[in-house]
Amino acid sequence: MEKLTVIKVGGKIVEEKESLKQLLDLFSKIEGKKVLVHGGGRSATRLATNLGIESKMVNGRRITDIETLKVVTMVYAGLVNKDIVASLQGLGINALGLCGADMNVILSEKRAVKDIDYGYVGDVKSVNSETLSDIINKGLVPVIAPITHDGKGSLLNTNADTIAGETAKALAKHYDVTLIFCFEKKGVLMNENDDRSVIPQINPEYLSKLVETGIVKGGMLPKLENSMDAVKNGVKQVIITEAGELGKDSGTVITV
Amino acid sequence: MEKLTVIKVGGKIVEEKESLKQLLDLFSKIEGKKVLVHGGGRSATRLATNLGIESKMVNGRRITDIETLKVVTMVYAGLVNKDIVASLQGLGINALGLCGADMNVILSEKRAVKDIDYGYVGDVKSVNSETLSDIINKGLVPVIAPITHDGKGSLLNTNADTIAGETAKALAKHYDVTLIFCFEKKGVLMNENDDRSVIPQINPEYLSKLVETGIVKGGMLPKLENSMDAVKNGVKQVIITEAGELGKDSGTVITV
Repeated sequence: MEKLTVIKVGGKIVEEKESLKQLLDLFSKIEGKKVLVHGGGRSATRLATNLGIESKMVNGRRITDIETLKVVTMVYAGLVNKDIVASLQGLGINALGLCGADMNVILSEKRAVKDIDYGYVGDVKSVNSETLSDIINKGLVPVIAPITHDGKGSLLNTNADTIAGETAKALAKHYDVTLIFCFEKKGVLMNENDDRSVIPQINPEYLSKLVETGIVKGGMLPKLENSMDAVKNGVKQVIITEAGELGKDSGTVITV
Repeated sequence: MEKLTVIKVGGKIVEEKESLKQLLDLFSKIEGKKVLVHGGGRSATRLATNLGIESKMVNGRRITDIETLKVVTMVYAGLVNKDIVASLQGLGINALGLCGADMNVILSEKRAVKDIDYGYVGDVKSVNSETLSDIINKGLVPVIAPITHDGKGSLLNTNADTIAGETAKALAKHYDVTLIFCFEKKGVLMNENDDRSVIPQINPEYLSKLVETGIVKGGMLPKLENSMDAVKNGVKQVIITEAGELGKDSGTVITV
């Protein structure tokens, strides 16, 4: 199968002019078919604050009331997405910005209220890989904002890491997929204060050990569980690396 | 050639929940291939005000500094566009929201500074009708926000009426195009205070007379000149009508 790279970049990188420029330069040099999934949480929080809307987070997830849904739709699907698309066009990449509602690419379900009412937050039900691969095969590069829809007329706020993982899994039917999570550190670190302690490779057995011994904890845990889920479901490998290292042979590789 | 309807709806209609719902219901019932172009100026003005950004208008055009460009990108390409796309998906229409940067569909040029510096305002250079018709022929319905790009990495704010006109002209190579401008009145009125005085048909000679006699003036004049330009450049007919009359045999028809 042909190769495809799905790259997830977080808020901090896409929201600063200089780091975004560097990232898109590196992204544009990645050979072959590719997809970009982005966040934008910091800008959303800033806009919400400027509009007098309180940002409520529970377990790192944003409680999304109707006003917050408007803010994240504006920031993710408008400001951040179109800025990336225009920049990529300037670099000769024929980008197409999408949210999950566009061409029904990502259908989700409003999260049921248990202990916490997350509001307009959607959990991914299905990724329309036929439509996405059709677009990719035309030489277009999808740029996906973390907003999905319920198919009944409502937009829903959805975690960008989850979108990247689900998109990579769905596209694994069509391509040999590498999923890259770009973040602030060089990879998964053996010692979180030492950037040179990157663990080069992790498989499920090794992950269990890393969790048992407390080396992997906190925010890294859901990222790694997400990665494991991806490789167990057809994605060839997941790479966790620093944005500035994109395209280089570095970071932590997760495989089965 | 196959028929295609390009519909432009203004800010007032798409920004109120009830009128948008009515419009999209009518839009979804229009048979055959179609494109929706929307505005969103009132919401942009409201958001700018809430953020303490002054909205400066000259000759009905928004002076777009860098902060205002962010606001219009958020509102037009984010909030309004994605709300329409999700609503259409709920009505069974496979919509795809686009700004001009997406797939390079509308390339524009930053307006040169003469007497007035409009800032990040773009005049349309070209509409990529091949890409648009390709999408339309797949059964997708493009929903176009009035944001374009310069191909060099910058987004530009562009008048939605102009986008509708230029898109209709470009697509006239591929289809038998009807362009419909939806607005607040029943059509072009002989007496602006009498809704029953709709002029059923206008051609270039008749328009000259209407202008000479002062019946057509003010904001209606650029709309009619825009329409005349469209029909002189391949668009079969332009209809100016009330949003609530969409799909009915009413309003003013402009032909050559």
